[in-house]
Amino acid sequence: MLGRGVWSSVRQGLSRRLSRNVGGWASGEGRKVDIAGIYPPVTTPFTATAEVDYGKLEENLHKLGTFPFRGFVVQGSNGEFPFLTSSERLEVVSRVRQAMPKDKLLLAGSGCESTQATVEMTVSMAQVGADAAIVVTPCYYRGRMSSAALIHHYTKVADLSPVPVVLYSVPANTGLALPVDAVVTLSQHPNIVGIKDSGGDVTRMGLMVHKTRRQDFQVLAGSAGFLLASYAVGAVGGVCALANVLGAQVCQLERLCLTGQWEDAQKLQHRLIEPNTAVTRRFGIPGLKKTMDWFGYYGGPCRAPLQELSPTDEEALRMDFSSNGWL
Amino acid sequence: MLGRGVWSSVRQGLSRRLSRNVGGWASGEGRKVDIAGIYPPVTTPFTATAEVDYGKLEENLHKLGTFPFRGFVVQGSNGEFPFLTSSERLEVVSRVRQAMPKDKLLLAGSGCESTQATVEMTVSMAQVGADAAIVVTPCYYRGRMSSAALIHHYTKVADLSPVPVVLYSVPANTGLALPVDAVVTLSQHPNIVGIKDSGGDVTRMGLMVHKTRRQDFQVLAGSAGFLLASYAVGAVGGVCALANVLGAQVCQLERLCLTGQWEDAQKLQHRLIEPNTAVTRRFGIPGLKKTMDWFGYYGGPCRAPLQELSPTDEEALRMDFSSNGWL
Amino acid sequence: MLGRGVWSSVRQGLSRRLSRNVGGWASGEGRKVDIAGIYPPVTTPFTATAEVDYGKLEENLHKLGTFPFRGFVVQGSNGEFPFLTSSERLEVVSRVRQAMPKDKLLLAGSGCESTQATVEMTVSMAQVGADAAIVVTPCYYRGRMSSAALIHHYTKVADLSPVPVVLYSVPANTGLALPVDAVVTLSQHPNIVGIKDSGGDVTRMGLMVHKTRRQDFQVLAGSAGFLLASYAVGAVGGVCALANVLGAQVCQLERLCLTGQWEDAQKLQHRLIEPNTAVTRRFGIPGLKKTMDWFGYYGGPCRAPLQELSPTDEEALRMDFSSNGWL
Amino acid sequence: MLGRGVWSSVRQGLSRRLSRNVGGWASGEGRKVDIAGIYPPVTTPFTATAEVDYGKLEENLHKLGTFPFRGFVVQGSNGEFPFLTSSERLEVVSRVRQAMPKDKLLLAGSGCESTQATVEMTVSMAQVGADAAIVVTPCYYRGRMSSAALIHHYTKVADLSPVPVVLYSVPANTGLALPVDAVVTLSQHPNIVGIKDSGGDVTRMGLMVHKTRRQDFQVLAGSAGFLLASYAVGAVGGVCALANVLGAQVCQLERLCLTGQWEDAQKLQHRLIEPNTAVTRRFGIPGLKKTMDWFGYYGGPCRAPLQELSPTDEEALRMDFSSNGWL
Repeated sequence: MLGRGVWSSVRQGLSRRLSRNVGGWASGEGRKVDIAGIYPPVTTPFTATAEVDYGKLEENLHKLGTFPFRGFVVQGSNGEFPFLTSSERLEVVSRVRQAMPKDKLLLAGSGCESTQATVEMTVSMAQVGADAAIVVTPCYYRGRMSSAALIHHYTKVADLSPVPVVLYSVPANTGLALPVDAVVTLSQHPNIVGIKDSGGDVTRMGLMVHKTRRQDFQVLAGSAGFLLASYAVGAVGGVCALANVLGAQVCQLERLCLTGQWEDAQKLQHRLIEPNTAVTRRFGIPGLKKTMDWFGYYGGPCRAPLQELSPTDEEALRMDFSSNGWL
Repeated sequence: MLGRGVWSSVRQGLSRRLSRNVGGWASGEGRKVDIAGIYPPVTTPFTATAEVDYGKLEENLHKLGTFPFRGFVVQGSNGEFPFLTSSERLEVVSRVRQAMPKDKLLLAGSGCESTQATVEMTVSMAQVGADAAIVVTPCYYRGRMSSAALIHHYTKVADLSPVPVVLYSVPANTGLALPVDAVVTLSQHPNIVGIKDSGGDVTRMGLMVHKTRRQDFQVLAGSAGFLLASYAVGAVGGVCALANVLGAQVCQLERLCLTGQWEDAQKLQHRLIEPNTAVTRRFGIPGLKKTMDWFGYYGGPCRAPLQELSPTDEEALRMDFSSNGWL
Repeated sequence: MLGRGVWSSVRQGLSRRLSRNVGGWASGEGRKVDIAGIYPPVTTPFTATAEVDYGKLEENLHKLGTFPFRGFVVQGSNGEFPFLTSSERLEVVSRVRQAMPKDKLLLAGSGCESTQATVEMTVSMAQVGADAAIVVTPCYYRGRMSSAALIHHYTKVADLSPVPVVLYSVPANTGLALPVDAVVTLSQHPNIVGIKDSGGDVTRMGLMVHKTRRQDFQVLAGSAGFLLASYAVGAVGGVCALANVLGAQVCQLERLCLTGQWEDAQKLQHRLIEPNTAVTRRFGIPGLKKTMDWFGYYGGPCRAPLQELSPTDEEALRMDFSSNGWL
Repeated sequence: MLGRGVWSSVRQGLSRRLSRNVGGWASGEGRKVDIAGIYPPVTTPFTATAEVDYGKLEENLHKLGTFPFRGFVVQGSNGEFPFLTSSERLEVVSRVRQAMPKDKLLLAGSGCESTQATVEMTVSMAQVGADAAIVVTPCYYRGRMSSAALIHHYTKVADLSPVPVVLYSVPANTGLALPVDAVVTLSQHPNIVGIKDSGGDVTRMGLMVHKTRRQDFQVLAGSAGFLLASYAVGAVGGVCALANVLGAQVCQLERLCLTGQWEDAQKLQHRLIEPNTAVTRRFGIPGLKKTMDWFGYYGGPCRAPLQELSPTDEEALRMDFSSNGWL
């Protein structure tokens, strides 16, 4: 993937790690980046011939840049990262860095199956401008991914990453939930700042907040469907596919939670559940991209083997938004 | 199970249904019972020779009666109902009715595998004093338990029940979650008043609250681990195994939620997660009963095939309470 | 369920156990019953008003009695036993005993959730004529059903049963596979003669045969879909829903396997897979009963909450038989 | 990954496809390669610093080359392919091609998440000497991997592959079983010759054999644990991790099955189940590699995050072999 020089540059990056300071957030000795807030996990636009459409990517970013997001997640599950080459992954992050507002955070997904590839990708992501790396659990050999194996993996990555690391647990894709005991252990690492948890188990989220309360460790909800509940148990934000199309609403939900307007928050949350499920579990990225087309963004096709929605599915998708007053 | 006369008495019961009025709650034409609040799912005490110990049951009830519970669930999963004969099930409910404070609700678990047996048990439960019936999903033939089948089942039970019906979804035991679309349809039945959902999926709970908002339909959390989050999304109470041992604390959590003291609620919720998991998923009823012994109640043995905790498990159980400051 | 006298009669039954001798099979000191062969798991016919139709049951038995089955399983999963009262369960077994040929075995399902109820039901089943008891794993508290708990359960039942015990693992219904290590331990019990395994994991079946090779212990396949493969790894028969409608064919498959005509066996097995799946996993008991109607038996309705097949499902069911040349 | 020229070379390769002829097997118009036989899925040896040890790879191949295998699978799940770079994947295949006997088949795993990457890797695998490509199901977006999506994926790959394609379903790693209806449809593609199925569901395997009987389509068992049963239902061979250490025995089992010595086959199969489970599901690749060290091959370390076995696990692994007489 990367050339032979990577390991020395990794070590250099490591020494730069604590002195880095991007945008409006402070880092430094003993202080971790504050990742609290809402992030859309940016989709990767493709042309009709399945090439990355960087122009459309920038246009989407400009539109998304008008919302009070904390930043952007690039190469999360919604970014179709498993379908991109290494150089595409880096180029996408680089373009987003340039197109996005300077005061926001760029969290780049750098997870690979092997520890070494993940380290290399993490270093490269930092080099092209990522403020932090979001690292999905390796999963192909899930039967062997014990807490010990995962702790070893993340420790190595965090040791060598020039930027802070955010853990990422997404069992719907990986068939694997990062065990709470591993999360607690990893929360003590000076270069691990939090977790994005997409599993939707709010008991688990509360427990993670509780057991890491003596660390600088932050929990982000991985989906808008349980965002309010996550705030209620101590999460500090969310990475929400739905924020790609209902950005204002998701940010409003954040504000209502942060200002203690729980009643209004609940009403808004309720109206976001079906649309959220529609663009995630129910219709996946094809559903999200179709909805982006409706809401003034460029959605476009997915790379194969992801397929376009059938007309029936598209109708059901539309209903999930219209019946809640969003279309 | 019940004699031949049951179906005629069912029909009589049905006519009595809307005129019934127990304790402090009102029912009547077009008005459903308000089930909001906290309920311990009462355990069934056994002697050393595995007979029901009604004396201990009454003693436990007297102690539990001092907390501001809305009422008691009898013959929930924690009541070991699958291990009781039909007459034991009814006798237990009858004794609880007598031992418990008059102003509280008695929700009796009446679920059986067949629709007819469930109807008969529900009628009998009402006859021995249940204010409402909690009806678990049939599950042995879960591969055939479509929404249509479950809607048919619950409609029949609710049609013929002299008392209001509460749906009960507990996938950890049944391998089956009552589908949301079935819940929404059933919420329109005049004799179905709510659901106890023990699955812990708060997105689902929020959606149920949202989609039944035009009905008199109430959602109860089925466990203390996600009680705060459930209130946040619109649930109105909980049936919490943990309330059998930390009754004051669970009621305090309820009050903090209802009065909008979310910060204190969060802190308390956090300290209840591990103890709650310990007496439910981790160590089951043997764990709950052991803990009851520690907290001044009678726990005692379970019926076989449930086994006593090993000394190692008992130590881990104790740690889950002591590390959170409860022991 | 049973009166107070049961435990003393249990003990008497126990003493009778080894001297019992039914039909053509021998039992006695140190000798276990030979259960090798094919068994249809008999369905329970109901009238239009959902009462057990004992007349139709007998008619079905007379027709089934013409095939070279080893015997009949009564109150297996296909017998809708969870929908029957205790007295109905016993009456059905009693009627089958009378209606079936004298030289065949009657294996009666006597599993209940509690150990004590299972013991009582097993004793009663023996009293009404069962040659052996098939005991399904308890499952409602599956989270606590460790090997130790299950070994304890089955040991108690086998200790007190007047007739030999057959273990029964059916994860599609129970969500629980009886662990191999528990099977191996239990195979050493003098009153446990085998297992009916419906899980379809032939690696596991081979392992059970291998690890119990020094015991008198026999493995039966729980479904016709993997009957040939089960014989190939050392099973000695099968309890096959499909034998209720294609009895001759299932017995022919047995004979082909036993006489080493594997090529013909394979061809026949292939044509039985889809019909078998149709009357089990795909369409369940409603599918089996509908097919019985087609093949000259009385199928009739199921008890609720099991529902009739839709016309579409019925068409698909028919296709699964006709495309394989059986209709 | 590959340069821009790949798509034109893909098309050229396609035209070469039917005229290719490697080693002792024939291909040509209307005739597919015969893949019947036993294959070890070759492991990838690493040095202590986690680099591919091509010397050890060749040594292993030379030793394995003495057994009557049909060929070798390279880059299957046991080859740690998700941990290799694209160029490592190709180099490993190239080295195996050179080290292995000329009369054997080389099946190279070329599956990637995207259809395009899979096509490119497949073409490249053919260019470095693969006789056929084994293509694992994409799985990260398993929620969207409908039969339609998978049929589309494999059709595209098979259309553009210069060598025959073998489907590969391995739910333990992918969380996804390639649906039978998709397999049946794909079996009609002139460039798809079979499936390696590692799921262990022999009913499914029999059904696939049955429903593809009019095609030139072959089914391989993906593990030695159910090899005999697979032959019994019509499979023609197996890709067996265990063949990396007990090569003679697995080939002997094949011969016993093919010559109809089912009794001896059964005895041998029984003794292979526990060792097979040990080097697959129970202890994974670390277990397989440890065992290779014991049996005179080079096993060596795995790449992280796979961890070495603990001493306790190693002891249990040894017992699984010794208790069956292999150590």
